[in-house]
Amino acid sequence: MARKNTPTLIENRACLLVQGPDSPGIVAIISELVRRHDGNIIGLDQFSEQGPIPHFFQRVEFDVEGLADSYAEIELDLAETLTPFRLKWRLADRSKPKRMVVLASKSDHCLVELLWRHSRGELPVEIPLVISNHREIEETATGFGVPFAFVSSLGPDKSMAEAEILRLVDGKADFLVLARYMQIISNDFLRRVGMPIINIHHSFLPAFIGASPYRKAKERGVKMIGATAHYVTEELDEGPIIEQDIARVSHSHTAAGLQERGQYVERAVLSRAVQWHAEDRVILEGNHTIVFA
Amino acid sequence: MARKNTPTLIENRACLLVQGPDSPGIVAIISELVRRHDGNIIGLDQFSEQGPIPHFFQRVEFDVEGLADSYAEIELDLAETLTPFRLKWRLADRSKPKRMVVLASKSDHCLVELLWRHSRGELPVEIPLVISNHREIEETATGFGVPFAFVSSLGPDKSMAEAEILRLVDGKADFLVLARYMQIISNDFLRRVGMPIINIHHSFLPAFIGASPYRKAKERGVKMIGATAHYVTEELDEGPIIEQDIARVSHSHTAAGLQERGQYVERAVLSRAVQWHAEDRVILEGNHTIVFA
Amino acid sequence: MARKNTPTLIENRACLLVQGPDSPGIVAIISELVRRHDGNIIGLDQFSEQGPIPHFFQRVEFDVEGLADSYAEIELDLAETLTPFRLKWRLADRSKPKRMVVLASKSDHCLVELLWRHSRGELPVEIPLVISNHREIEETATGFGVPFAFVSSLGPDKSMAEAEILRLVDGKADFLVLARYMQIISNDFLRRVGMPIINIHHSFLPAFIGASPYRKAKERGVKMIGATAHYVTEELDEGPIIEQDIARVSHSHTAAGLQERGQYVERAVLSRAVQWHAEDRVILEGNHTIVFA
Amino acid sequence: MARKNTPTLIENRACLLVQGPDSPGIVAIISELVRRHDGNIIGLDQFSEQGPIPHFFQRVEFDVEGLADSYAEIELDLAETLTPFRLKWRLADRSKPKRMVVLASKSDHCLVELLWRHSRGELPVEIPLVISNHREIEETATGFGVPFAFVSSLGPDKSMAEAEILRLVDGKADFLVLARYMQIISNDFLRRVGMPIINIHHSFLPAFIGASPYRKAKERGVKMIGATAHYVTEELDEGPIIEQDIARVSHSHTAAGLQERGQYVERAVLSRAVQWHAEDRVILEGNHTIVFA
Repeated sequence: MARKNTPTLIENRACLLVQGPDSPGIVAIISELVRRHDGNIIGLDQFSEQGPIPHFFQRVEFDVEGLADSYAEIELDLAETLTPFRLKWRLADRSKPKRMVVLASKSDHCLVELLWRHSRGELPVEIPLVISNHREIEETATGFGVPFAFVSSLGPDKSMAEAEILRLVDGKADFLVLARYMQIISNDFLRRVGMPIINIHHSFLPAFIGASPYRKAKERGVKMIGATAHYVTEELDEGPIIEQDIARVSHSHTAAGLQERGQYVERAVLSRAVQWHAEDRVILEGNHTIVFA
Repeated sequence: MARKNTPTLIENRACLLVQGPDSPGIVAIISELVRRHDGNIIGLDQFSEQGPIPHFFQRVEFDVEGLADSYAEIELDLAETLTPFRLKWRLADRSKPKRMVVLASKSDHCLVELLWRHSRGELPVEIPLVISNHREIEETATGFGVPFAFVSSLGPDKSMAEAEILRLVDGKADFLVLARYMQIISNDFLRRVGMPIINIHHSFLPAFIGASPYRKAKERGVKMIGATAHYVTEELDEGPIIEQDIARVSHSHTAAGLQERGQYVERAVLSRAVQWHAEDRVILEGNHTIVFA
Repeated sequence: MARKNTPTLIENRACLLVQGPDSPGIVAIISELVRRHDGNIIGLDQFSEQGPIPHFFQRVEFDVEGLADSYAEIELDLAETLTPFRLKWRLADRSKPKRMVVLASKSDHCLVELLWRHSRGELPVEIPLVISNHREIEETATGFGVPFAFVSSLGPDKSMAEAEILRLVDGKADFLVLARYMQIISNDFLRRVGMPIINIHHSFLPAFIGASPYRKAKERGVKMIGATAHYVTEELDEGPIIEQDIARVSHSHTAAGLQERGQYVERAVLSRAVQWHAEDRVILEGNHTIVFA
Repeated sequence: MARKNTPTLIENRACLLVQGPDSPGIVAIISELVRRHDGNIIGLDQFSEQGPIPHFFQRVEFDVEGLADSYAEIELDLAETLTPFRLKWRLADRSKPKRMVVLASKSDHCLVELLWRHSRGELPVEIPLVISNHREIEETATGFGVPFAFVSSLGPDKSMAEAEILRLVDGKADFLVLARYMQIISNDFLRRVGMPIINIHHSFLPAFIGASPYRKAKERGVKMIGATAHYVTEELDEGPIIEQDIARVSHSHTAAGLQERGQYVERAVLSRAVQWHAEDRVILEGNHTIVFA
């Protein structure tokens, strides 16, 4: 089914993210650095958060002939040039897909959307594995040519399941996606996993934190429902928000109707968050995100 | 400035709202009642909430030659016909504007929007009075030809201010609108006022209940802000929601920027809620609204 | 993958659509008719288009114990009761799915969405057949358990292909969907097919009529792109519109990027149009639709 | 009524727009130029349109202590530095409001919105004059403290009116806004006026070009109506689009109802376009705009 309309992987294209304390001349220093490696800037977004201590955020995409050969050299130069300014940076090679492992549960609408967009070449990722605590998901994954692993969530506690997941993703993934995984992730898992985790929450956070948001939405009589994609942190449903969207509903929707309608918002919101993350468009700062979309 | 595109007041047009326990044949009974008063149905919305005890909701607009003469007779017939079914009903004469008193504070964007829409003939209301605890609002009101009353909110408690407001609106209003009034209404006031009160809350409820929602929104890093129009009840920010809407924001918005952007959502949401209320499109049921918009 | 959140097929539920010249008392006559067949009205929408000759439109859903047994009787009563008023009507049994044949081309995003929603039990249809002029679609259809027929669009003219399609759908379908079929349908086909055809056009009609709307949109520099679902008539892209929606775009989108983004609007718009048609929520009047959604 | 939430005029803040053929190192050259004038970059957007001849677009905001003193020097440096690259550039002092003259007709909703946002300090403009061919607009303008000039549009041709308008705005305005002015502007006027003109068209262009778009929208039975703000060029309704938006409508809207609903889209779209233009966020390239909003 794969047909690619827009290039998601681009040869000799680098993407640089920089963040830290603002000081005059940083943009010039960075763009001069790009220039001296014969880089041609294709797009640049820069934003300074004003305040007592101004913060600097920049994303720049640039093309370099033979990027692979000069990549290490550019990284070295970045380290030497930006360290004196106490700036954090991250360089990405846009010709290489990020490796995304998806954890899903019985409710597979988000998983199917990610698999489908990936199969059409719309996401700059590869999907080495889908993990689920429901065996019926296997057919969905393998139908898209993606390997599947079953990890039971039963048992006295989650520690065995989490240990198994850690073993499966170790060295195989750059980030994880909880595509309606429906299992609480332990803090121990978060501390050990060593990569970002994106979750989709089925409400317009911070409204309806916790379980059963559609039932709560029905009870409260809201006129819109939403979904929120966020990075997972130790505080449940409190992680940095990447993207949100809503759909209009009415008195005539049952809780089940809200849920059905909401699933189309969830899959769209999660897809955008995954795409932006995979394209290095999201910068984390405290509990916020800067999204250069 | 008044120019009227669509008729908001319509001669010989009645509007009937009915709600209560559902039973077979009610629609036939009501439409037969309309027919026997020579009414011509122009629009009808009906909705049955399924559940252990199904609830029936209906709004019907109909034209009757010489409505004023037969109005009392129709009301009598409604009382006799619908009481056996334990149905509540409300008949409105769509040729008569509802009387709306607006309470405003310093932040006048919602007030201006209501005054302006009213001056264009877009709302089926008359505005006998604007009340504020800020004298600078007076010029805004009188500029639109609307009387103004100043009621100070200072003093040891709100009871004197509330007593004065009750005195001012007594017999002069059909409903009140808190157009960013910013004062907590006491339960005592609610019990005595005897008419619906519509409030605009500057967040997408139930997110950011209470004060300073834009500051909270900035802190939480949301990607959308919203506004909620609701009927006022004794529970702060928990009353039945009439309408909600949102606007997209980004990391680059300061709290003040969120507030500025949010004001355009607030005035739109409140206007729609006022219009629907004034056109008898909103039915209250417990803590929910059925809106036939 | 099928899991059903909201009932799409409902036992003993009938849906009646009525349209024609307005006259006083029609709603009473229809609801009395429903009552005398022991029908319980669940939802009713009525709309009168004002004008020199007012037009009447009504949709009513009602429950009847043992509907199958009384169906013919109700139809007979409708014919006798409504004919004197020159009203057109259509009765549907909501327990029975409509039969929908989908014609698709290489671009399969709309087809996949319909197959997927159907597999989840969200559309009150059955899909006896997918027809395409591209063999690579076969796997997609059969993967969802839906039969597939290949009909070549090559050859000196379309008449052979159209004859074959007519043969395939004859007696097997209640309506056709062109899910980005990309072939012009001849007037001869339209006159012979004897059932409604829904098409998805990849622009916000009437903007960008005809071929290559995304290229035209790029050339014109629009800030939003759209999609339009409409019934097919003899005038290309001029048929009655059922549903439209848009997505925001910017200067940074290439024509291919507009197309990719547009596909998500197309599949959503077509899905809603199909659902509303299948649930008998769409009434045709001249070149317009009344949609009781 | 003026209360300012976000700074629209900023001391010592410059805004630079650059466009032209792309070549490697331009970003470095520009940011080095800013650095050597002790400028601190606050925000930077850069975009390269790929193609046979790549085009470069950049907007950069930067702070310079004592900008007024070094302004001429920076301009000189820009001329010397960028000319060899055949780049066009424009420097703006963000502490100075742009002068906006508004032309309005009887339909004053867009005018009122601009006057109102200006009075709240939300637009970085001053309004030296409102011009109209309808005397009843005078009170609206002067009520906001803005001078008014009446220019009759009657007479054998528009040349006298246009000559009078040219005389009135000469040396007094930086750009003109047609806030539903409803008069066709002659090519002769366009060639002589020497400043940008922003128009609001009451449809989602290119749908419903020309007069009476709401009537045409009703006839076509669209499910959404829109508005388009664009720069005025010699081709009627074909100028570069700055911003567009839409509102959902239904079969129940009359043409007048579409118009009423559309007016709220028009005023929002025109306001955004005016704000972006006044903040130097819009770059013209051929018949397109690059909007760094």
